[in-house]
Amino acid sequence: MPGEPVTATLLISCPDQKGLVAAVSDFLYKNDGNIIHADQHTDQEENVFVQRVEWQLDGFRVPREEIAPAFEPLAERFGMRWSLRFSDYTPRVAVFVSKLSHCLYDLLARWRMEEFRADVRLVISNHADNAEVAERFGVPYRHFDMTTATKETAEAEMRGLLDSEHVDFIVLARYMQVLSPQFVERYPHRIVNIHHSFLPAFAGARPYHQAHERGVKLIGATAHYVTADLDQGPIIAQEVAQVSHRDSVEDLVRKGRDLEKTVLARAVDLHLRNRVVVYGNKTVVFD
Amino acid sequence: MPGEPVTATLLISCPDQKGLVAAVSDFLYKNDGNIIHADQHTDQEENVFVQRVEWQLDGFRVPREEIAPAFEPLAERFGMRWSLRFSDYTPRVAVFVSKLSHCLYDLLARWRMEEFRADVRLVISNHADNAEVAERFGVPYRHFDMTTATKETAEAEMRGLLDSEHVDFIVLARYMQVLSPQFVERYPHRIVNIHHSFLPAFAGARPYHQAHERGVKLIGATAHYVTADLDQGPIIAQEVAQVSHRDSVEDLVRKGRDLEKTVLARAVDLHLRNRVVVYGNKTVVFD
Amino acid sequence: MPGEPVTATLLISCPDQKGLVAAVSDFLYKNDGNIIHADQHTDQEENVFVQRVEWQLDGFRVPREEIAPAFEPLAERFGMRWSLRFSDYTPRVAVFVSKLSHCLYDLLARWRMEEFRADVRLVISNHADNAEVAERFGVPYRHFDMTTATKETAEAEMRGLLDSEHVDFIVLARYMQVLSPQFVERYPHRIVNIHHSFLPAFAGARPYHQAHERGVKLIGATAHYVTADLDQGPIIAQEVAQVSHRDSVEDLVRKGRDLEKTVLARAVDLHLRNRVVVYGNKTVVFD
Amino acid sequence: MPGEPVTATLLISCPDQKGLVAAVSDFLYKNDGNIIHADQHTDQEENVFVQRVEWQLDGFRVPREEIAPAFEPLAERFGMRWSLRFSDYTPRVAVFVSKLSHCLYDLLARWRMEEFRADVRLVISNHADNAEVAERFGVPYRHFDMTTATKETAEAEMRGLLDSEHVDFIVLARYMQVLSPQFVERYPHRIVNIHHSFLPAFAGARPYHQAHERGVKLIGATAHYVTADLDQGPIIAQEVAQVSHRDSVEDLVRKGRDLEKTVLARAVDLHLRNRVVVYGNKTVVFD
Repeated sequence: MPGEPVTATLLISCPDQKGLVAAVSDFLYKNDGNIIHADQHTDQEENVFVQRVEWQLDGFRVPREEIAPAFEPLAERFGMRWSLRFSDYTPRVAVFVSKLSHCLYDLLARWRMEEFRADVRLVISNHADNAEVAERFGVPYRHFDMTTATKETAEAEMRGLLDSEHVDFIVLARYMQVLSPQFVERYPHRIVNIHHSFLPAFAGARPYHQAHERGVKLIGATAHYVTADLDQGPIIAQEVAQVSHRDSVEDLVRKGRDLEKTVLARAVDLHLRNRVVVYGNKTVVFD
Repeated sequence: MPGEPVTATLLISCPDQKGLVAAVSDFLYKNDGNIIHADQHTDQEENVFVQRVEWQLDGFRVPREEIAPAFEPLAERFGMRWSLRFSDYTPRVAVFVSKLSHCLYDLLARWRMEEFRADVRLVISNHADNAEVAERFGVPYRHFDMTTATKETAEAEMRGLLDSEHVDFIVLARYMQVLSPQFVERYPHRIVNIHHSFLPAFAGARPYHQAHERGVKLIGATAHYVTADLDQGPIIAQEVAQVSHRDSVEDLVRKGRDLEKTVLARAVDLHLRNRVVVYGNKTVVFD
Repeated sequence: MPGEPVTATLLISCPDQKGLVAAVSDFLYKNDGNIIHADQHTDQEENVFVQRVEWQLDGFRVPREEIAPAFEPLAERFGMRWSLRFSDYTPRVAVFVSKLSHCLYDLLARWRMEEFRADVRLVISNHADNAEVAERFGVPYRHFDMTTATKETAEAEMRGLLDSEHVDFIVLARYMQVLSPQFVERYPHRIVNIHHSFLPAFAGARPYHQAHERGVKLIGATAHYVTADLDQGPIIAQEVAQVSHRDSVEDLVRKGRDLEKTVLARAVDLHLRNRVVVYGNKTVVFD
Repeated sequence: MPGEPVTATLLISCPDQKGLVAAVSDFLYKNDGNIIHADQHTDQEENVFVQRVEWQLDGFRVPREEIAPAFEPLAERFGMRWSLRFSDYTPRVAVFVSKLSHCLYDLLARWRMEEFRADVRLVISNHADNAEVAERFGVPYRHFDMTTATKETAEAEMRGLLDSEHVDFIVLARYMQVLSPQFVERYPHRIVNIHHSFLPAFAGARPYHQAHERGVKLIGATAHYVTADLDQGPIIAQEVAQVSHRDSVEDLVRKGRDLEKTVLARAVDLHLRNRVVVYGNKTVVFD
């Protein structure tokens, strides 16, 4: 990533109308924008238009701080929800974890290898178990004791911590505690969770036990944005693996770990590279 | 298949006990059985032992009609549920279908190419639409008008027809009518259905609409034995395909057709080659 | 497909330049084109721009026969290779086949179910075996005896036949005879072949034997456009399936058939829906 | 793994003969062996029989140190190549690595999470880059400078190091240096390598560049035992991922990393759980 030219990315959604693509490409063209990636999607049933366009800042006639104001009139004309991202901004990330370590290890290793453009500020947990893992990677670890009695206070403290660290993006890496709606709504489409099943199959607790009980021939994992409705948020990525009668619940758990790591990392990567747009309860993934 | 040596296959399930494998392999060895395939599975949670063993009849000291009586004492000793199959027997099959043709075409083509060892006796439908397809392949087609009023009579007539054709095995190839429990229990683990989703996700009606609504990134198909509980029978095979926001409901239906054909054919093939043993509500697939 | 609004589709490739997307979308916008699908790709290493754009004819200000001339100046300005397709045109197809029937059955069934918008004019074979299959589906079957001595004459006769039937598109459905370069160059990117391996692994003859010999854990199939270099043409679609030590060569062949059918049908479908653009020896597949 | 009952595992291969299964199961049965897992495979073309059988030591009448001598006569009678493993033995492992870190991170994390029963004694590299990774996980790191001039000496020193650490098993985790035949033959079927392609496609150097050049629609990774023939050893595991024209070489490398990690880890896991038997140039994987 260092050495790569800096780009700007527009993520747009709005009611579908004629002239949208022409208007956006005109805006870039007349300002000498060199488009690196452009993709759009029209949901004809919902009449929604979604676009992602990325161009090099170098040579673009509008200075970076004036791009948003310059785009605003066009956005208003079409009734767009939009956001503008710059590729040299490094999102500030918190990872939430409980007792299991595999997703945490994987995320921290990817971050240290610079697979992710991210600044992992801290790891938050409702258990002490993963302190050593965070320490291996030189990340602060904060353990909050979570009981029905302490949850509200703990969440308030967490929010303070996240604020003071200016965290943009939260990754629930097998965090087995439900976040309150108040917490969730502070981070709209900025919390990603990994659920250890092929949603909507086996929502809720102990999905591998459910899968084993039902005798399925594939198990899955689902990464999704967290919303107030448990396991119901917009899906970003899903994957499955073959299993058979030979696999005990423990084998499903073992095979599932690899799915969970891979699918969560893919979702985090897509989010960090500004590849995901949410509309309604669905995602458009421009990969 | 013609020219291949004739084999006998034992399918066994019983409570797990020491000496099971030794007893069965001894029975075959002392009678000079040449084993072609042997596989077993122990479900340690349920304490169930399941075995499939196939050997050549040629050179086996027990004549084929005496194998069952000769095995009976051993089976009783261990409390086995078992069945004995001969590879030169050709199962007699009925295909049930509604308006959609893709699974029907696929099954009849495989049968005509001799991919399946089966004798397709007839196609039964609650619609007239597929008569032409059956005719292309030279199979009798029987259309039963199915309304709440006529269902009972129609099913009775169907049963008569299946009896007179000595049908062993029924394939529901996108048959969109629920069979009565009375009908189902006459064919225990001898009716295979294809459900157009990755069960247990999207059970019931219009699974592709449900999948599109939920914004999943994979769609699936599930072949299972039919039991009295709709979409709840033992699963034989499942497969998935990637989809994205670009896929409309029509695209899901289109991509799903290929899954349905392939998964149903795989289940039919496994059943016909005596590769499936059911215990509880699960299958062991010896592939 | 009947009842669907008629669309026009432009398939474009040219050297990458600023203003391309703006120019094309402007052309459509100022003529009131209602875009149904637009997608583009920039190969930054090769500096090639590839675009597919599809819009409704209804309401478009340029009459269909004047679209090409109206677009020509723009195409010339950017040095485009381009083609224009209308969705109500039905391509005329010939299927070439040898002894194996599974791809032929699958293609003809899909055609009869109207999964493909195509007019299958005839089946050509170097063997008599599949005459009955063609007959089941009511398609003329032409058998050409192919020996080193007769090949040139046979190909000449074939070309006459294809010309008289105005065939646009040829599908090699496990046709095990190499077409001469002279034949191939008459149908640039209009002959699709299915190779029964994951190319470039196991090019050439008997790939399943090669795969079994090597002990691979996956087998594959590859659909590609035919060029003068055997098994080297631009790849359209590939798929794999898991195999294990349990699979004999015959099992690989059996499992491979399903891959071959599915992958070939996908490639044919993509071609018929004008989703594939070739540049260099690669394809861009806008799916 | 701690708390699990200790088991013994026999891995057997020999010419196929009648009575093999009966003889082995008898040996276990008459000594009160409680079989946990038994599976066998007959390669009918090569006339080879391969078996894996695992039973609990607890209650087995033969003391562990006498099992091998007790089994020897039976093994001799059938001409078996065999080995006996105990589940409470922890193999001693060396990981070889070059500049890339992803497989190393993954293996060390799995080891620290006790996904593997292994004792990682050291990391050996021809570069200094990964010293920090090894340090994070508390593993000794040895860097050997490798040039044509130093290679022989370096390998000799490595061998000394491996001997002094009593290393059983070597994992090449993207080690980009060819080991000499002399080195390899000291560890028959005890060195696992990950090749970053779907072998035999794209053997040799820079497979992702080759894959991009060829325009394939899937990329793969292959884990295999190392033999004197580069990239030709017995394959243990393979996996693929979908790619498209949108993927640059860098994207292939990025997607490939996840395949490499997963496939290598699967092969290491299978080896450590004594699930792999090699015969000829193939593996039987009892999973």
